[in-house]
Order: sequence, then structure tokens, then C-alpha cells
Amino acid sequence: MEIRLIGAEVIEGCLGMPRTIELMEDAFRALSEGGVQSPLRTAITNGEGTVLYKPAYSEAAGIFCVKVVSVFSGNAALGLPVTPGIIVINSEETGMPLAVLEAGYLTSLRTGAATGLATKLFAKPDAKIGALFGTGGQARHQLEAMLCVREFETIYVFSRNEENAERFCRENLDIAGGCRLVANPARSVLASCDVLTLATSAASPLFEWSEVGDDVHINAVGSLGPKRTEVSAETLLNSRVIVDQREACLAEAGEICLMREAGLIGEDYHPSEMGELIDGAREMQHQPTVFKSVGNAVQDLVCSAEIYQTAKREDMGKTERL
Amino acid sequence: MEIRLIGAEVIEGCLGMPRTIELMEDAFRALSEGGVQSPLRTAITNGEGTVLYKPAYSEAAGIFCVKVVSVFSGNAALGLPVTPGIIVINSEETGMPLAVLEAGYLTSLRTGAATGLATKLFAKPDAKIGALFGTGGQARHQLEAMLCVREFETIYVFSRNEENAERFCRENLDIAGGCRLVANPARSVLASCDVLTLATSAASPLFEWSEVGDDVHINAVGSLGPKRTEVSAETLLNSRVIVDQREACLAEAGEICLMREAGLIGEDYHPSEMGELIDGAREMQHQPTVFKSVGNAVQDLVCSAEIYQTAKREDMGKTERL
Repeated sequence: MEIRLIGAEVIEGCLGMPRTIELMEDAFRALSEGGVQSPLRTAITNGEGTVLYKPAYSEAAGIFCVKVVSVFSGNAALGLPVTPGIIVINSEETGMPLAVLEAGYLTSLRTGAATGLATKLFAKPDAKIGALFGTGGQARHQLEAMLCVREFETIYVFSRNEENAERFCRENLDIAGGCRLVANPARSVLASCDVLTLATSAASPLFEWSEVGDDVHINAVGSLGPKRTEVSAETLLNSRVIVDQREACLAEAGEICLMREAGLIGEDYHPSEMGELIDGAREMQHQPTVFKSVGNAVQDLVCSAEIYQTAKREDMGKTERL
Repeated sequence: MEIRLIGAEVIEGCLGMPRTIELMEDAFRALSEGGVQSPLRTAITNGEGTVLYKPAYSEAAGIFCVKVVSVFSGNAALGLPVTPGIIVINSEETGMPLAVLEAGYLTSLRTGAATGLATKLFAKPDAKIGALFGTGGQARHQLEAMLCVREFETIYVFSRNEENAERFCRENLDIAGGCRLVANPARSVLASCDVLTLATSAASPLFEWSEVGDDVHINAVGSLGPKRTEVSAETLLNSRVIVDQREACLAEAGEICLMREAGLIGEDYHPSEMGELIDGAREMQHQPTVFKSVGNAVQDLVCSAEIYQTAKREDMGKTERL
């Protein structure tokens, strides 16, 4: 058998943010319509960390894929990625293994693109002022996605570490275009923000409901796990909450799990999925919105399919006999 | 990250049958002692076939692994393997992906080695006459494993297609050594056989209990799924049945499922696992035995670990940056 090896640079050359946002439309629509098989992920944990196996298939994507992604927090101290991963794809016609893709870049790209789609669907059409919390590995794609879908004049960048925010603004001037990037502004600017994007590992809310405007759209894509939240319960209760996938977010999103634990929402809590609102978003009444994403294998699936087709057509990456 | 690519030829150079049989001892002992994490496999099916994801980890093996194996019966007509697969392994210390291995050769090798271990443990020490049913892709390793653990004088080879049996005997003279390989003998030879190894896709039993001797050891490693059996109920009821893993065989082995459906065994049916008998096999009383195997991820795990360590030490296979 012959396997195509597709590294991060190849992926960057195959798939840009605007196209990835389009793919997220297909992905989330298919997910909500039941056109995707994405069985529960499997996790194996030892004393050092966890390896997660996340398989998925859809007829539309035309491939099977599995993301094998590890979470080893000790890696940071070793200068290694904390969540290294690869994606294996198989043919839908013959089951033959086709390719192995580096997963870190793709995960960041598709997570950004989900924020891009949510911002396109739910933020004010004339949004001009944004804020980005977090300057970690996924922040650049989050910024790029916001810039793809609205004509921002200013994006404020918040980080617990002020130097990180300054460095991030300097390093991302290349994609900012006409938009000003402002590091570490006064908190009071939050009231003027049309869009807030949260990509941190915060355990507790990054701001209070009283600090933000009542026509804000919030993207919350960080804070992994049912015990951590980037968004306050008051903000969530005053907003329309939209999730990537209901079942996963009800089980894993701290934003929701902590509200349920506190008795603020009941067992019948039923946020909309983004895929259910793609065609109706324009008719939604004006209201504050929160998009919460824990990430779904369908995002990896549709991106991997497109990357593989492009790489094959253009002979990008390396092929090796196995 | 850097990934080592390990094809079938490299695996053949890294790991011979005698060592693989030793590894099976470790593997099955660890499995029965609870030292292995092998969560339920995940399966995704489309109209053409199924892709299975089988992850496993044990501290003793020192790696995480997942076998991604497809079952696409239409592949035969295309000249492609019906069950193509790869194995991905990750570091237990950092979770980093380490290697991708071709899985077809390894699956055949380790399935043979399980037969080898079972034959070593349960067949008469002075077994001289054997038979092999089936001459498909896994038959050579089944033969090699038998030859590794007993001094066979004759092995009879049965195939539904007589020419296949003759070709198989010719093509495996290189490993037969002093053992005669006899294609398509009269059925009456079965009564003289000390060991029968069944590696077919038969839906119904290959012989009756009345045809075999009452000190026979049978290895049954074929006939995938709960509706197919290579061994008659009478044979099973007259023998001590030993399985690779109880939970999997009670759920998936046709040999057992069909007996339960027929009311011949109850819900309390409790065959021994091979791993429970490794230290006590020599003390087992003389009796006919059937080893039924549906295959377990731990077999892939221990073999992958050894192959990876050898390939790394000897710089075998190819390493590629991803």
C-alpha cells in the first residue's frame, strides 16, 4: 500500500481560512442533519497523559478518518507540543489507508474556522470592534477567522501575560490588514466590543455580563473539560447559546455543566446547534449570542478530505510504500 | 514530529515466529491479569465495508497503539487486500506519534503465534501428526507456528479447492524442514491427528466429533462473526474450550454464540482464557482441547512495541518528518 504523508506546511499550502470556513458550513450542517457517523471517542490514560481516538465518516466527505491526539501536559516543559496528533484517512471505496496528516495545524485551522462561521452567522453585520482573549497556539487562526468574515477596525488582545499580548500583536500584523491590533487595553473597552473570541485555558469566567454590550457575539472555544468555563453563567443566561454539537457540549462543556451543577438550568436545557441555524441565522432576532465549541471530528473529516484531494491532485506531500 | 514507517519486509526482518510466540505469552498473561487497557473497538460502516479502530495500551508494552483495519470484501475482485490496515503507535511518555506499521503481515504473524502458544500449552508433548484447514493469507504463519512448538512428522493440508492445497504444500516446503506436507488426504486421517488448526472462513463445522481422536488439540482462529463456526457443538462440548479473551469470545465467536442460541450452554458458560493457563497448562489433565481466538488488540500491541524498538535500534524502515 502507498501512504501519502501530509505535514503542516503542505496543509497550509492546500487550505486557506476562507475555504475552511466554507467547509465548516458543510460540516456543521451535515452534523446536525445526521449525515455524519462520529462514534464516541475512545480515551486511554496512563500516569503521564491521555491518548484520544476520534473516528468519523460521512458520505459527503468521501473518506473515513481518525484523529489520534494526545494530551500530555508535561510536554510543555520538554519543548514538545502538549497535544500532538495525526490523522489517518481511509478510502470509502476500498478501506485502503490513503494518508497520514499532521493534526496540530489542522486542529487550530478548523477551530478558527468554526469561530469564523459562528461570527459570520451570529455577529452584527457591521461589527467593527472585537477582542481576543488568549495568545496561545490557536490564537492566530482565531484572529484570522474573525478578520475573514467582518470588517473589523480594531481588535483588542488580552493575555494574562502582557508581553505575550504585545508579541502576538506584532507577530500578526501580516494578517491584520487595515485592522488595528491593540494589546492589553483597559477592561472598559469590552463594553464597545461587537465580538469577543475566547481561546484560553481559563478555569473561571474572563469577564462579567455587566462589562459587555447587550448585542455582543461571543465565541468560546477554549477551557477544555466540564469543570472549566470562560463565560459567566449570567452571560450565558442572558444570551442565546449555540453549540457545535449538543450531546458533546451537554456532556463536556464546562460552560453548560457548571450551570447545570448550580441548578441554573435543568435537564431539558436544549441549546441550538450551529448546523441547525446556518440557513436561518439571518432571520434570527437581534440578541446577544454565545457560540460554545468543544470541537467535533466532523471538522477534521471535511478538512482532511479536501486536503487529501488537493495534495493528491497537485502531488504535494510525500508518498511512501508501506 | 518524526514518524517511522515500518512496512511488512521490515517487520519480517525484526520479528520471527519463535520470538512472537514468546511475546504472546506476555500478551495473554497480561490480558488475563488485567494489565492491558483495550477499550471496545469502534466500527464505522458504509455501503462498501467497515473500518475498525482497535486501541490498546499496557505499561509492560510501553506504548499506545491503535490498529485501523478495514474489511472490504469487494477488494478481492480488485486485487486488493480484503482487510488492509495500519497500526499507529504513540509514546507512553509524551504521547508523541512514533511510527506507522503495515498491519496485514503483523496480524497474520501474531495470529499464527497465538496458535503456536496454544499448541505449545495444550497439545500432546509428543504430537507428531497435524492438519491445517485453509490455505488463505494466514495459513503460512499458522503452519510455521505449529512447526515451532512440536516435532511434527506429517501435516495434512485441507482446502475446499484441491489445487490450493497442493500449491500451498509446494510453496511452504521452505519452512517444513523434516515434516511432510500432504495435500488433500482422505478424511480418515483426521482420526490420527494430534493437532488440528482451522483458519478458514467456513460457516459450518469442518468435521464431526466422531472423526477426530479424543486426545486432539484444535486451534480455531477463522470464521469471523457470531453466525459462523469451524467446530461442531459436539466437539466443543466434548472438549475443554480455551479462549483468547472471554468477553470478546462470548460476544463474537460463532463457536460459542451458536451453542448458546441452541440452548446447549447457559449464560453461566465460562471458558478459560489462555492467559489464565500459561503457568498451569502442564498440570492440566489429559483431555481434548479447543483454543478459540477472535484476536485481541494486545497481540498487536506487544508485537508493535518490539518491532518499533528493534527498528529504531537498527535504524530499519524510513523516518519522515510530518
